[in-house]
Amino acid sequence: MTDLFAVRWVGPAERGGPAVALLDQTALPDREEVRYCRDVDTLAEAIRSLRVRGAPALGVAAAWGVVLGALAGTSPRAVADLLASQRPTAVNLAWACHRVAAIGEDPEALAAEARRIEEDNAEACHAMGRHGADLLAATLGDRPQRLLTHCNTGMLACQGIGTAFGVARTVFADGRLAQLLVDETRPLLQGARLTAYEAGALGMPHAVVADSAAASLMAAGEVDAVLVGADRIAANGDTANKIGTLGLAVLAQHYRVPFLVVAPVSTIDLDTPGGGDIEIEERDPDEVRTALGLVRLAPEGSPARNPAFDVTPAALVGAIVTERGVVDAPYTGALSRLAGAQAVAAGN
Amino acid sequence: MTDLFAVRWVGPAERGGPAVALLDQTALPDREEVRYCRDVDTLAEAIRSLRVRGAPALGVAAAWGVVLGALAGTSPRAVADLLASQRPTAVNLAWACHRVAAIGEDPEALAAEARRIEEDNAEACHAMGRHGADLLAATLGDRPQRLLTHCNTGMLACQGIGTAFGVARTVFADGRLAQLLVDETRPLLQGARLTAYEAGALGMPHAVVADSAAASLMAAGEVDAVLVGADRIAANGDTANKIGTLGLAVLAQHYRVPFLVVAPVSTIDLDTPGGGDIEIEERDPDEVRTALGLVRLAPEGSPARNPAFDVTPAALVGAIVTERGVVDAPYTGALSRLAGAQAVAAGN
Repeated sequence: MTDLFAVRWVGPAERGGPAVALLDQTALPDREEVRYCRDVDTLAEAIRSLRVRGAPALGVAAAWGVVLGALAGTSPRAVADLLASQRPTAVNLAWACHRVAAIGEDPEALAAEARRIEEDNAEACHAMGRHGADLLAATLGDRPQRLLTHCNTGMLACQGIGTAFGVARTVFADGRLAQLLVDETRPLLQGARLTAYEAGALGMPHAVVADSAAASLMAAGEVDAVLVGADRIAANGDTANKIGTLGLAVLAQHYRVPFLVVAPVSTIDLDTPGGGDIEIEERDPDEVRTALGLVRLAPEGSPARNPAFDVTPAALVGAIVTERGVVDAPYTGALSRLAGAQAVAAGN
Repeated sequence: MTDLFAVRWVGPAERGGPAVALLDQTALPDREEVRYCRDVDTLAEAIRSLRVRGAPALGVAAAWGVVLGALAGTSPRAVADLLASQRPTAVNLAWACHRVAAIGEDPEALAAEARRIEEDNAEACHAMGRHGADLLAATLGDRPQRLLTHCNTGMLACQGIGTAFGVARTVFADGRLAQLLVDETRPLLQGARLTAYEAGALGMPHAVVADSAAASLMAAGEVDAVLVGADRIAANGDTANKIGTLGLAVLAQHYRVPFLVVAPVSTIDLDTPGGGDIEIEERDPDEVRTALGLVRLAPEGSPARNPAFDVTPAALVGAIVTERGVVDAPYTGALSRLAGAQAVAAGN
């Protein structure tokens, strides 16, 4: 588990390099398989098929993908365009590979920028964890906390301790975690497969629940806060995240449970005015008709719909926790200041 | 499909009888296997392991179970107690087998009562379907309806056209069904496996969705009404039903979508004052850790919780559709009149 990673760059001088190495998340938790992507097309397939996933980790993988392409003589901008198109909802993917591509053509300079994104990710996760845990302590007081989370936002998603999961992990490190309730997160079960795997490896008290059990847990007063990540935060605070997030936000409002979005500033997309402007990826209906492609659930040929994300309106978001601090409603001005400062710092 | 049934009595004079024959719902939709329960213990196991399920169908199966026991010389009251204890939340189960047991010891008289329960069920389903469809037409007008349902409440659950599903089927017969959205209903996937199977066989336009997709569908205005069944309705209208029902009710209120509970009068339990008095069955956590026991989802040994039902407070129930008509809030008096009249009619 100390070796757990989502993405690892294998340089040209290393054995098997150059390659973007991924811990294949479609094989977890049964098998820990490392996949070496030695060309951009293999990496694009891995992104599309969720061998690597989670908005921040997608950014790191794509950043290294640009370096990989440059070493093979492919234009950084062309690689960035190709990789960014694989998953339309996660903004970090496009942001990271275009940030690297903007550096030029020199592989060493590109690699330095990719490394910077990776290191920034890890630092940002630590900062988000601290800010989030402090906010929860201020809100909930000294009592042990029962936190509910959705999907996977830990090391596997972030190349760092995580976003929402990183907050729970920090609460755990602070000795205040009573239990992490882990939504299984159908259809692809990133909660049951990945978050439970990380929580178990770290010794965090946790329990997997069906996604639809959240309402009764909240009604019974068994949830002190809901923590989720984000794939894209619009300028007004509307937040796209894994399907099921919106339902949790509505429930949290109904039961007066704090609902926190935890995401790095790179997830804020000032070019997207509101949630209605976010493209929602519709994935293969077979993800719903089966369990991980291994068992057919619905009858052969049953129609199914599979929106992979939903949009939680800013009015249902209690706070957005970033590496630069916590933002409350109204979001528009505050997000613009945070993300604008970043754009200036990055020279975008 | 014309032969589709949940429960069928095979009399002593018939080949293979006496037996309670069940279409094994744990094998659907892959295999249509009929299981002949020739003794009460086999039937009890079938009830416990959900080979037969759905509150009304459980009642019919248990009613015939009392007859089966009497033919083997077992006291009807002892059989009723045994069968009623297999699933604590569904009130129809206890109601039906105790109603039969109250008749006495004569197998022919018991069988006549069981047959009456079965026939009443089918008639009640038709009446609920009509009442529900009329209510929807009055509420929604002439436009084609997009209805969302949870779990399975059709022929397989009811030994009739169904409760919530029966309403959708009546809307379809009336030419007004645009689409039935079928919640897959984790963990045991009765929606994906059984409701999609019934809807497909009947040619109803439908689509299976992950349970957590309901919020985004409602937010997009794609759900005109939510229809659910019930396992037990307390005297005040609080309703126990499959886990996930409460979340749909909260969402329906938030998005101002009509939320209807459809259940026969036998589901109303005047001895249960409110939802807090309903025992909620906690089932094996492996149902959550796996897909139907066939594929492990969460890591080996991951803690999991598996409440099988939740309780929707009466305040979130838009209307209760029974075979004797539609009841609106406040429920207390109206439910008492409906169920009280039934108790008198049945001589209880």
